[in-house]
Amino acid sequence: MSSDQEFLDFLRFSQHRVENALQTYLPNTSKAPSRLHEAMRYSTLGSGKRIRPMLVYATGQALGITLDKLNAPACAVELIHAYSLVHDDLPAMDDDDLRRGKETCHVKFDEATAILTGDALQTLAFQILSKDTSGQFSAESKIKMIEQLAFASGSRGMCGGQSMDLDAVGQDIDLVHLELMQIHKTGALIRASVNLGALSNSETSTDEAKRLDHYAKCIGLAFQIKDDILDVEGDPMMIGKTRGKDAKNEKPTYPSLMGLDGAKEKAELLRQDALDQLSIFDHAAAPLRGLAEYIVSRKH
Amino acid sequence: MSSDQEFLDFLRFSQHRVENALQTYLPNTSKAPSRLHEAMRYSTLGSGKRIRPMLVYATGQALGITLDKLNAPACAVELIHAYSLVHDDLPAMDDDDLRRGKETCHVKFDEATAILTGDALQTLAFQILSKDTSGQFSAESKIKMIEQLAFASGSRGMCGGQSMDLDAVGQDIDLVHLELMQIHKTGALIRASVNLGALSNSETSTDEAKRLDHYAKCIGLAFQIKDDILDVEGDPMMIGKTRGKDAKNEKPTYPSLMGLDGAKEKAELLRQDALDQLSIFDHAAAPLRGLAEYIVSRKH
Repeated sequence: MSSDQEFLDFLRFSQHRVENALQTYLPNTSKAPSRLHEAMRYSTLGSGKRIRPMLVYATGQALGITLDKLNAPACAVELIHAYSLVHDDLPAMDDDDLRRGKETCHVKFDEATAILTGDALQTLAFQILSKDTSGQFSAESKIKMIEQLAFASGSRGMCGGQSMDLDAVGQDIDLVHLELMQIHKTGALIRASVNLGALSNSETSTDEAKRLDHYAKCIGLAFQIKDDILDVEGDPMMIGKTRGKDAKNEKPTYPSLMGLDGAKEKAELLRQDALDQLSIFDHAAAPLRGLAEYIVSRKH
Repeated sequence: MSSDQEFLDFLRFSQHRVENALQTYLPNTSKAPSRLHEAMRYSTLGSGKRIRPMLVYATGQALGITLDKLNAPACAVELIHAYSLVHDDLPAMDDDDLRRGKETCHVKFDEATAILTGDALQTLAFQILSKDTSGQFSAESKIKMIEQLAFASGSRGMCGGQSMDLDAVGQDIDLVHLELMQIHKTGALIRASVNLGALSNSETSTDEAKRLDHYAKCIGLAFQIKDDILDVEGDPMMIGKTRGKDAKNEKPTYPSLMGLDGAKEKAELLRQDALDQLSIFDHAAAPLRGLAEYIVSRKH
């Protein structure tokens, strides 16, 4: 089997697994408040690339963890991601009508519900990690996971990156600032996904943890650069959102600062660096390797 | 010293203590993103009744815990409260311009910043609980606190109550539904505050925990009823917000459903029930007793 095919199989497998787990973790619409629960499920289930949960599973696999023990951290990172999308799409933020090929939460429901939906999805992420009864993780491991996820999500991580992004609209910012912003906005949660996977095995060595963290930093940045590239040359039908939003919103991007070719070259270098970090791992790390390839080659 | 005076001293002491602790926990404005950090500090520091942190300290004191060990849970509940206020005040929600006697976050900054500020304050609550290095709590206790706080904050707690509240605008709802809504919206976090205090001592007995939880349910409901009463007859200068918002927004309230006198009588019964629960505790529970009195008698 080609390594591409192997990666795609693992991705589909992760998507299926996390979808099932999210179905269980998300509150049922038969319970009050049903409209909020409906919006939470609408904004999380049925679509999405599930890159972050896949990273949790793939890292766990590289370290020899049974995958069905990893549902809680996999769902937690996806819930944080889903909450951030619901809030980012709000009129006061990016004002997007379309997400993952369907109406955004505030369009389908209303703005107030979208605000509360994001809020409740964030809370659920921490609830799931604290409540996890798989018996896989000690209280100490859970606390480390929560600390890691909270740091990655907060004002010094994803949420801070979003704030920097808003502040940067219409501003002349340089590559250093753009990178700092992206490391927070997208990179922090991707890094947390890998690190939660690494924390799932208490026997992970310092060298393994360090390499996995560096791998995550590389693919996180590559992921954002590729997003910027797709915003310029992606197929709107494939990317599931309007193209050229960044240019329209006067947002600084990698292509706007270093040209389309420069951005592609940088993504390629990051891919190679990411793969180098994985050299100490055996074939169990194939999905992590495949992801580094996929992030740079994907069409959506 | 009168018990009123004793309670007010403890409240002032708690306010001072939690303010200092929040000053330390909240990210500094010298760190990027400074605007977000400024908004987080603006929305949390300098004002607020601090009832929830006071409940953590007062419960801890009733159970013999040294108060300086309780800063993390005290700040965590206040951060969840502060985040909910920032989001509730947004134009798409309650659309309030004034809060705690000063401009609301979205008026002082902007809507996008207010959304992110609430998001980051919520995250910080969980970060503080997971990171707490006071050495007071075992990882098991921390996990229980996080689970409790997450449940109380999420779609089956505070956030769900806010959703029910929005759904109820302009609707004919009865007393049972109003109570269900309030139990979620205000009650859940007040209950969590007491329960986090109870969890701070691993030797708390089942009977103590049960009584404290019941006490918390009573004062939580009394607190909301009193808020509704103040919205009818409070002094705008004292309550720090516009009076009559509920009536204007066609929101069902206790006074609107059971009359002003009926609402006052119910608050009084809840006060008595709350005090009855504390009968097994000694003088260390004086602040909890004082709070039950204060909630019903307060002017703002």
